[in-house]
Amino acid sequence: MQTPSLSATTLPKQVVIREMGLRDGLQSIATIVPTAAKLEWIRDAYDAGEREIEVGSFVPAKLLPQLADTAEVLAFAQTLPGLRASVLVPNFKGAERALAANAEWMLLPLSASHAHSLANLRKVPDDVVAEIARIRAERDATGARTKIEVGISTAFGCTIQGEVDPHEVVRLVQAVLDLGADSVSLADTVGYADPAMVARLFERVLRVAGDRLTCGHFHDTRGLALANVYAALQLGMTRFDASTAGIGGCPHAPGASGNVATEDLAYMLGSMGIETGIDFDKLIALRGKVARWLEGETLHGSVWRAGLPKTMKIQEAAHA
Amino acid sequence: MQTPSLSATTLPKQVVIREMGLRDGLQSIATIVPTAAKLEWIRDAYDAGEREIEVGSFVPAKLLPQLADTAEVLAFAQTLPGLRASVLVPNFKGAERALAANAEWMLLPLSASHAHSLANLRKVPDDVVAEIARIRAERDATGARTKIEVGISTAFGCTIQGEVDPHEVVRLVQAVLDLGADSVSLADTVGYADPAMVARLFERVLRVAGDRLTCGHFHDTRGLALANVYAALQLGMTRFDASTAGIGGCPHAPGASGNVATEDLAYMLGSMGIETGIDFDKLIALRGKVARWLEGETLHGSVWRAGLPKTMKIQEAAHA
Repeated sequence: MQTPSLSATTLPKQVVIREMGLRDGLQSIATIVPTAAKLEWIRDAYDAGEREIEVGSFVPAKLLPQLADTAEVLAFAQTLPGLRASVLVPNFKGAERALAANAEWMLLPLSASHAHSLANLRKVPDDVVAEIARIRAERDATGARTKIEVGISTAFGCTIQGEVDPHEVVRLVQAVLDLGADSVSLADTVGYADPAMVARLFERVLRVAGDRLTCGHFHDTRGLALANVYAALQLGMTRFDASTAGIGGCPHAPGASGNVATEDLAYMLGSMGIETGIDFDKLIALRGKVARWLEGETLHGSVWRAGLPKTMKIQEAAHA
Repeated sequence: MQTPSLSATTLPKQVVIREMGLRDGLQSIATIVPTAAKLEWIRDAYDAGEREIEVGSFVPAKLLPQLADTAEVLAFAQTLPGLRASVLVPNFKGAERALAANAEWMLLPLSASHAHSLANLRKVPDDVVAEIARIRAERDATGARTKIEVGISTAFGCTIQGEVDPHEVVRLVQAVLDLGADSVSLADTVGYADPAMVARLFERVLRVAGDRLTCGHFHDTRGLALANVYAALQLGMTRFDASTAGIGGCPHAPGASGNVATEDLAYMLGSMGIETGIDFDKLIALRGKVARWLEGETLHGSVWRAGLPKTMKIQEAAHA
């Protein structure tokens, strides 16, 4: 048996958890959370030490009534000092709204699956790339501060198409970096990734994107999200998406988790001695509120039920 | 950002999943599963490709009526060619029964937590070590084939005592190896481990035990079991305990998972291209049966609900 010194692998000292519950979570949930509750959610997440929150999506209200109040929610988030609020933007029209709202970041999804891209945005990936180029030009023309993150979705496989070629992921990353995206992220949109796949794909994309590969987005559909995070941590990744109570499941897997639960990710990182700035008790209290707002919806996550180990020092919010 | 070539880390090509549901699972569950159902469980697990099953525990029937039929269950398991059946043995009396039953393996728990050892076996760890020495001498005196595995429990912390010193774990491993244990395993009995802790402790114990450190036993109390398995895989570990439907929770964490779910572990390993010999569909069918036998009990695991990814080749049982 070989014993390489893997425990000596340098893991990051600090990691940012980006809260996705208000966007990736709520978009898949029928319950419409009132705007006032969303503001309370953001306020409480901020008080718990979260400093990056995706607050909504600039899509037509007809398509996603749950997120119809995104402009108002974003305006509130912008009043909280040091909070980096992002919005999802599926197309040029949405980007215009994000620019008009002076969003700090907009997240543009680009599916590496041809079939998923057609189903989701009614465009093939290269047409999405062309639209991102137009969005970037518009951003520059308006002189807006809004930064562009391109999220490569279905990067590890697709429920419609099946296999997604890693070459295609790398090609699309290169294309959006060439046209001036400020950052890219890799998303396991449907919970197909395993830690070996994560290690391989992140390593390849890091060679192309370097510091511009900024985030990993793992759905916990089959329980592997935290193992996938660990694999990405070992490659030096320092930002991960997560969703309060793991909300935001996949329509192809009824009852399954969405994004990895914020509480579980915060716990794992805290246990490993990685600073997140998050106050765990406040996070669990927020989960309780979200559970009340989403009564009847399926929630996820493990640590809220089990509680922290006796051995773990509770982290104080570093920003408090 | 550093990009060490971690994806090139050599992971094992084959891994054994040892089924713990019938022992570690049922011992924590009030429902008494009839002997006939246990035999069906073992038969089905065997048909699904499982080749190592812990079938019960030689403890007084008064203490664990759920496992009172262990001798009968073991006798049945011994009729299945190539199945390695083990039994848990908490003391000398239990060992005598295991030897009389001609068990192939007996698993002797040795808690690294002083407080847990007292609570569980009413002995301090060094007295347990002394008893293991007596058991080993008895085994040799009888000429029985029964091999001795010492499972170091609470190796990552304890709900009663809190911290467990890794030095103590290493000291106890050394002690039982010195007295002739055939193998040792490390158990996160209460779900306190994280992947960084696993990497550190397994690396230390591998230096002492080498090939005689044969198994990792991770409870999924806080959702980290699969991440912990991945950390141990990276150190070359090739055997992990798991429990059908994740049964066997901890009394200190009501509703929390016990051992990592066999289905989730088999899925992760299969997805990573690691051979387990397990037929996934048969495993899921078995889970359905166990769910009926345990109606009303809390079950766990993710992949049974979500199903396999479209991209994944179903593994055939290698032994079929």
